[in-house]
Amino acid sequence: MTNTQLTHIQIDNYGPWTVTPEPRREMDLQTLQSRLFADLAQFVGNRGGYVFFTRFDNMVAVTNGLDRTDHELLQESVGNRYPVTLSLGVGVDEIPVEALETATAGVQAAGSAQDAERTEVLAGEFHTGQAADDLHIAHFDVDDATGKYTDRLNEFDTFIQIEQGYAALMRYMREEHGALSFFVGGDNIIAVCPELSPATYQAAIDAVEAEVGVELKVGVGTAPSPHEAGFAAKHALEDCRHRGTAVEFAATDSPTLSTD
Amino acid sequence: MTNTQLTHIQIDNYGPWTVTPEPRREMDLQTLQSRLFADLAQFVGNRGGYVFFTRFDNMVAVTNGLDRTDHELLQESVGNRYPVTLSLGVGVDEIPVEALETATAGVQAAGSAQDAERTEVLAGEFHTGQAADDLHIAHFDVDDATGKYTDRLNEFDTFIQIEQGYAALMRYMREEHGALSFFVGGDNIIAVCPELSPATYQAAIDAVEAEVGVELKVGVGTAPSPHEAGFAAKHALEDCRHRGTAVEFAATDSPTLSTD
Amino acid sequence: MTNTQLTHIQIDNYGPWTVTPEPRREMDLQTLQSRLFADLAQFVGNRGGYVFFTRFDNMVAVTNGLDRTDHELLQESVGNRYPVTLSLGVGVDEIPVEALETATAGVQAAGSAQDAERTEVLAGEFHTGQAADDLHIAHFDVDDATGKYTDRLNEFDTFIQIEQGYAALMRYMREEHGALSFFVGGDNIIAVCPELSPATYQAAIDAVEAEVGVELKVGVGTAPSPHEAGFAAKHALEDCRHRGTAVEFAATDSPTLSTD
Amino acid sequence: MTNTQLTHIQIDNYGPWTVTPEPRREMDLQTLQSRLFADLAQFVGNRGGYVFFTRFDNMVAVTNGLDRTDHELLQESVGNRYPVTLSLGVGVDEIPVEALETATAGVQAAGSAQDAERTEVLAGEFHTGQAADDLHIAHFDVDDATGKYTDRLNEFDTFIQIEQGYAALMRYMREEHGALSFFVGGDNIIAVCPELSPATYQAAIDAVEAEVGVELKVGVGTAPSPHEAGFAAKHALEDCRHRGTAVEFAATDSPTLSTD
Repeated sequence: MTNTQLTHIQIDNYGPWTVTPEPRREMDLQTLQSRLFADLAQFVGNRGGYVFFTRFDNMVAVTNGLDRTDHELLQESVGNRYPVTLSLGVGVDEIPVEALETATAGVQAAGSAQDAERTEVLAGEFHTGQAADDLHIAHFDVDDATGKYTDRLNEFDTFIQIEQGYAALMRYMREEHGALSFFVGGDNIIAVCPELSPATYQAAIDAVEAEVGVELKVGVGTAPSPHEAGFAAKHALEDCRHRGTAVEFAATDSPTLSTD
Repeated sequence: MTNTQLTHIQIDNYGPWTVTPEPRREMDLQTLQSRLFADLAQFVGNRGGYVFFTRFDNMVAVTNGLDRTDHELLQESVGNRYPVTLSLGVGVDEIPVEALETATAGVQAAGSAQDAERTEVLAGEFHTGQAADDLHIAHFDVDDATGKYTDRLNEFDTFIQIEQGYAALMRYMREEHGALSFFVGGDNIIAVCPELSPATYQAAIDAVEAEVGVELKVGVGTAPSPHEAGFAAKHALEDCRHRGTAVEFAATDSPTLSTD
Repeated sequence: MTNTQLTHIQIDNYGPWTVTPEPRREMDLQTLQSRLFADLAQFVGNRGGYVFFTRFDNMVAVTNGLDRTDHELLQESVGNRYPVTLSLGVGVDEIPVEALETATAGVQAAGSAQDAERTEVLAGEFHTGQAADDLHIAHFDVDDATGKYTDRLNEFDTFIQIEQGYAALMRYMREEHGALSFFVGGDNIIAVCPELSPATYQAAIDAVEAEVGVELKVGVGTAPSPHEAGFAAKHALEDCRHRGTAVEFAATDSPTLSTD
Repeated sequence: MTNTQLTHIQIDNYGPWTVTPEPRREMDLQTLQSRLFADLAQFVGNRGGYVFFTRFDNMVAVTNGLDRTDHELLQESVGNRYPVTLSLGVGVDEIPVEALETATAGVQAAGSAQDAERTEVLAGEFHTGQAADDLHIAHFDVDDATGKYTDRLNEFDTFIQIEQGYAALMRYMREEHGALSFFVGGDNIIAVCPELSPATYQAAIDAVEAEVGVELKVGVGTAPSPHEAGFAAKHALEDCRHRGTAVEFAATDSPTLSTD
């Protein structure tokens, strides 16, 4: 059974901070946001988790394998090195969006995102134990994006195509399956999913193509940790590339699962 | 007259690199991408320019004030510190998308984004001189995003709302005005525009609300450099906040233009 | 009994790389080196270890609590994100310099630091289990450095004083006790030590003052991990400050040991 | 005539901050310090300057080519992105230590390094204009450090040798010539010097060998900017390597001076 542990990461009172005492240089804010995300990617990532930049002031992480002590350490370390602090809400559920619902609710219950008094909240429960099918990660990309778009259109028009594909997929997967899909750069989208069949993934790809004309393919992995599931998904996506297929599932007894 | 100098920044042969010899850890790729963007934000930003992460492997920068030597230095410095290299194409035009068309074409003419032999291209022409109306920057945000979304919905459903607003605006501004709009985190979108009237901005806001129900407001600034224009736009957006208006233009003789 | 696990971190073939095909910009090298150290500080540090910059191309880490898998992950992650790779040698001993002797020997046995064919060595044995007295960390600082030097002398002459104190202490502790002392910025020196008495630390302080006239004080902590021992040492150093003493040992049942 | 512009960079009230409300994790402090230094290396370095980490909480930069506006922008950008702020003092002189004397005095006059009320001082005068002989940079390294030390001794004992060589050189150059020498990692030392003859450099090398038995060699460059002078010095040091000599001066009409 799927057990997705999601952490909602929210910079405390960030909006007001960015304009106090007057608006701060935009490129400094961009630097701060992207470096904070990079630090989270390392901290969470080298413990087997995944984090997505989402809106940068609010991020979503898949944190199976990280316990309360890890979350506390993350808050302490960021608080020691940045001019801002983080609140964290954690939730666990078979359906990713339900886990996030719990995670966000924990943060919201403590106060507004723009409440100067609400800092470094740590709310929620953690998944104990781990099972081989705790995580299902799907790694999508756009079929031949370089040939169809990057090498032909100006970069913004390419970006519009990729963005349209992403917008269609994120809504479809959220509404149909409670799955959370994140753009991770290039033409890549990573989705945190409940257990879904190959036919269901094919239906998602078909829906996106029907809506916006963007052709996707997907590799899917299942494992006890986000990194292992995502790594298996990447290998499965390579299989799509070599076999010319649109949907591939990683063999669950794949050696890539055990060596990482 | 608007003179937008845009630089298309492309990581050379990045897609193949990410899966050679086998797929690399996703969180390492996320770290690499976001730190590279942060470095560009500092380099371009402390010369008065703006850079947007776009797809991370392809980025768009507004580089009025940066000449060929600056671009060469950027390539050298990244090449010295990262396992990847950058190609750069530059274009100048009254209409931003036309400037980008030139910029991208210069990179494309030298070879494919996935051509292992094509590295560190530097193509294009630079804007010489600077005028008070070279740049028009519009800074949009979502009206009361914290109250309507962040404090009420789970973070993914908030993100879907923001994303929908962004997707609608980016297409509208591109198609109607050749303007380039970039999501910069939170509920903020920065658009690089030709000269447009307040009524035109109001029409864009109305179109987004009609299409996806997301209410935007916008501050607009005009200046010789992206930072100055964008900084004036931020102040104008603060004026929207205080006055309860949807569109504000910075006074062109604003002291904020000269002190920075 | 002290069980110090030390890791010798060596950038592979770094010297030749810095001048190939011609000398690289010095400030890019400085950036690369200090950011690599920062990443190691986070990776090792958020697992309870300590890392010291030493010569930057060769660093020394106290890695009790980090096993072979952690070391492999560190090599993989650095290899994914930097233009250089790391070799690691690990040793465990009651006497720190003996542990380092083993650690370095493991790297040396695989080839020269400037052998282009020798990359990503991982040599050595790891400490299994952990005990309350595995680590002894001493945190020294210069008594009233701000009042005596920083606020009075030009920064280089202040630096000469601090440097002299460090040079004297590092040699004394190495020769007398096999302890390894590292300058960590400001007027701070952290030493990885075998078990030593308060009188022994007083003798070290006296020797430094006699040799170069720099007055030190020291807090000493003992714990199962470098961070815990070092954190206790910092608290003990605060005790020196408040009590006006030169040597303080952390109470071994200090609550600071258990809360971190 | 030499015109060295030096900037003393001091983190405001850093010591107290590191222990408030209680001591902060050492590895977070190390990360903060080294990343701040890296950012300064990029900002100063891509304007043709040099910065040295010195004590990390106090750093020394050679800033010919950077004016008051550049220094203000540096303070603003660091203030936007770090939990600490910077004070800067600037001085210009034929003799480097005299320039630093002025630079430090400007900061000291505004208050103590540990005065919580004294923040973001910017004191001093800037060098206007530039001449071909404004800067003299000497790049030293240890002759065959890899063969003699790195590949033979444990890393700490190697470090002691390098450190001894550095300590001897820094004192000699300061006392005899008012030159400032900085360890920059590996076996490299960069000195900011007044105009000195080859025989004078040979005498310095001889003095170090006589005092501590460490054999140095040196390349010297002269140019209008620190980067150009330092780059010429690196090339001259390569000449030492190829010719087996101990002191080489860059040809002043070297093409490397003009292409950068």
